Amino acid sequence: MIKPRTPPGVMELLPRDQIAFQRMLDTIRRNFERFGFLPVETPVMELTEVLLTKSGGETERQVYFVESTGSREKSAQDGRAVPELALRFDLTVPLARYVAEHEAELAFPFRRYQMQRVYRGERQQRGRYREFYQCDIDVIGKDSLSVRYDAELPACIYAVFSELDIGAFTIQLNNRKLLRGFFEAQGVADGELQALVLREVDKLDKRGADYVRETLTGEGFGLSAQAVATILAFVETRSTSHADALAKLAALGEGNDSLRQGVAELREVLELIRALGVPEANYALNFSIARGLDYYTGTVYETTLNDYPQLGSICSGGRYEDLASHYTKSKLPGVGISIGLTRLFWQLQEAKLVSTADSSVQVLITQMDDAQLPQCLALASELRAGGLNTEVVMEPSKLGKQFKYADRAGIRFVVVLGENEIAKGTATVKDLRREDQFEVARGELARTLRVELEQSRVMK
Amino acid sequence: MIKPRTPPGVMELLPRDQIAFQRMLDTIRRNFERFGFLPVETPVMELTEVLLTKSGGETERQVYFVESTGSREKSAQDGRAVPELALRFDLTVPLARYVAEHEAELAFPFRRYQMQRVYRGERQQRGRYREFYQCDIDVIGKDSLSVRYDAELPACIYAVFSELDIGAFTIQLNNRKLLRGFFEAQGVADGELQALVLREVDKLDKRGADYVRETLTGEGFGLSAQAVATILAFVETRSTSHADALAKLAALGEGNDSLRQGVAELREVLELIRALGVPEANYALNFSIARGLDYYTGTVYETTLNDYPQLGSICSGGRYEDLASHYTKSKLPGVGISIGLTRLFWQLQEAKLVSTADSSVQVLITQMDDAQLPQCLALASELRAGGLNTEVVMEPSKLGKQFKYADRAGIRFVVVLGENEIAKGTATVKDLRREDQFEVARGELARTLRVELEQSRVMK
Repeated sequence: MIKPRTPPGVMELLPRDQIAFQRMLDTIRRNFERFGFLPVETPVMELTEVLLTKSGGETERQVYFVESTGSREKSAQDGRAVPELALRFDLTVPLARYVAEHEAELAFPFRRYQMQRVYRGERQQRGRYREFYQCDIDVIGKDSLSVRYDAELPACIYAVFSELDIGAFTIQLNNRKLLRGFFEAQGVADGELQALVLREVDKLDKRGADYVRETLTGEGFGLSAQAVATILAFVETRSTSHADALAKLAALGEGNDSLRQGVAELREVLELIRALGVPEANYALNFSIARGLDYYTGTVYETTLNDYPQLGSICSGGRYEDLASHYTKSKLPGVGISIGLTRLFWQLQEAKLVSTADSSVQVLITQMDDAQLPQCLALASELRAGGLNTEVVMEPSKLGKQFKYADRAGIRFVVVLGENEIAKGTATVKDLRREDQFEVARGELARTLRVELEQSRVMK
Repeated sequence: MIKPRTPPGVMELLPRDQIAFQRMLDTIRRNFERFGFLPVETPVMELTEVLLTKSGGETERQVYFVESTGSREKSAQDGRAVPELALRFDLTVPLARYVAEHEAELAFPFRRYQMQRVYRGERQQRGRYREFYQCDIDVIGKDSLSVRYDAELPACIYAVFSELDIGAFTIQLNNRKLLRGFFEAQGVADGELQALVLREVDKLDKRGADYVRETLTGEGFGLSAQAVATILAFVETRSTSHADALAKLAALGEGNDSLRQGVAELREVLELIRALGVPEANYALNFSIARGLDYYTGTVYETTLNDYPQLGSICSGGRYEDLASHYTKSKLPGVGISIGLTRLFWQLQEAKLVSTADSSVQVLITQMDDAQLPQCLALASELRAGGLNTEVVMEPSKLGKQFKYADRAGIRFVVVLGENEIAKGTATVKDLRREDQFEVARGELARTLRVELEQSRVMK
């Protein structure tokens, strides 16, 4: 006998939690499609050579390689060190490969969404997953891509999180050009040094101002206390309204080319986010955001839950210069944003912001007597044709037991079709949510239940 | 520069084909939920020890093992032959592990659906995939499970394939007890020999009657020509209507216990399939169906497209005695059925039974002048709030080019919001499908387009 268990670091849910998770996936997908993004799915396995264009580094150590028995034997014979196949560790590299491979068949700007699982052999830790869903949107241009698209992504993310209904949230914006220009003005002119300072600044929320101040004035950086004070004041900037955001940008003054460009881009993005109807409470400037990844070049995003800042960013991304330089000579600038749904779901569960869902089954048809089974099955067919998710109790048992099952399973409507009801052409319905009972003509049953469900949906 | 390409044996689709595929997945899921099945997702990786309870055999050779760099190094040090993790090769073993692991938290009969990709290191071949979707439903009982559930699965499959709208189809039914009883009566009493004869009989459609006759009368089987003739006449039995199916069962006579039991089960299943409203043209007895897998013990199913018999079974399954004997002492009988959607989609494309879908984007808002961009974005927000998937052209270009883009992308409605329209509070709509153009008050636009889409959906 083998103990049935999943490997460590994966999330597996019981059905009612799976339903809650699936509803989040559906909401995200519906909103991605509302904003005109097209679906893409890529294989979970990529050729190692294609996936790991840069070798070494933390990423490669976390990659899962894949081999069948046959190819393991062949690898051993050939003395091959690295297997031919590996699991994707994000959706960005597969996107780059996809766009480069199908470049001639795609229309640009190419707007795609992708919601699939990715794999990382992370150190074991609570809330860290080795298999997790990413839900990504990106817009990819050919040769160039207007900064206007940088405003569309936050508008879409606003729609997603509004409908997910997990509390007040703020989409925070910054711009790498603005950051770079500002640092140049502080005497941090060297590109690599800027990157290092940005990396330290990125730790501000996690490690605190003192740590960052000591690091930046210490050896290695050697910045003046004055410069560091200016930098820290700058990165603490947050806007409190649309007008305040514009004012804070104006207050940066003329500055150098890079700063001016960053300010102009952020201003345009802010104006268009407003034109797209996003309430000003839901977006803000945050000059501390740099994003760890090296490839962001313009707008960068993070999203936080106002009442749960400790969760960190639940949706991040930004603008990059060239998506697929490893695969194609075409220049493919883009902008993208990503929700790590598995971790977010875990966080929301921990914070009690999502609860176990009602069953996806809406109606249970009870059964007390074998003689009524054909009638029960016919009724089930009517309800299913009427758009209701319906389960039939297939073998007679005590009615109380059947009600108890419905209650524990989270099924809202329990239908009784006894001799009386069959004689009268009706059905008796018990609404377990409203603790209400009523009898309705059989021909009206599906419509009646649909109306009840729709009312609850709207009232929610 | 690295050539961007997918590994062999995977299906990757362009967006409009992905939309067609996604619609099939949605249709299948909707119908699975209509019949009261609950969603389950399991990790793509299982512990090897758990996944491969029986070692050796074709399955194990096809399994993909998974290792991170760290665990590869550790395996090499420890001299471990087989990696700890492997990719699932079907959804049945993960179901068994899931039910055994969560037994105490599940309600039985447990009705679950699962639609995920599975992995097999198959020999390379056209139309054979190493990564493919399976869409499974199963009902699992504890200790026992009424044969009535065996009727629910074909009713659900009928709903799925009716809505998928891929042509006339027949769900074919047989019963392993009936087969076994029949063979016993023909003097093939030994269990193992029966299995071997059944395996030969299973080749009937592929290899023809002559091949099977020669094999069964030849050495190894040594059946009499008379017995083989009776067997072949039997396995060629197909029913042509509900009444004919009952008559063909009655014609088998009394026979032995196993035959009688099989006949009784099939009769009950047929009656309940009819009670569930499945038209008699869509189901039939087929005594040749045995299914290759050894673990089916009662009802077995195959589904074929009437006009494309060469595609073989597009949906198969059956009744099994004990799902999870490797993981639990509980007896868990079940019945399940599975659609291999990736292969089916490929077959339907080859047979020209599915075509590239319209875009998931329903409306394109054109743009001729930067001055109108905020108005265009506001209109987009109105349409999205009104339930329409809407894309906005973000930078002005020639209107003809924008229309051409919509046409090639499969976007049905193109909206023009020029100076005139803005002044009048209207929008001009070109319906590319109906080649029709109209002007409508802006406040009516979302409703008007929704009605048009709904009409087309109903007319289809």
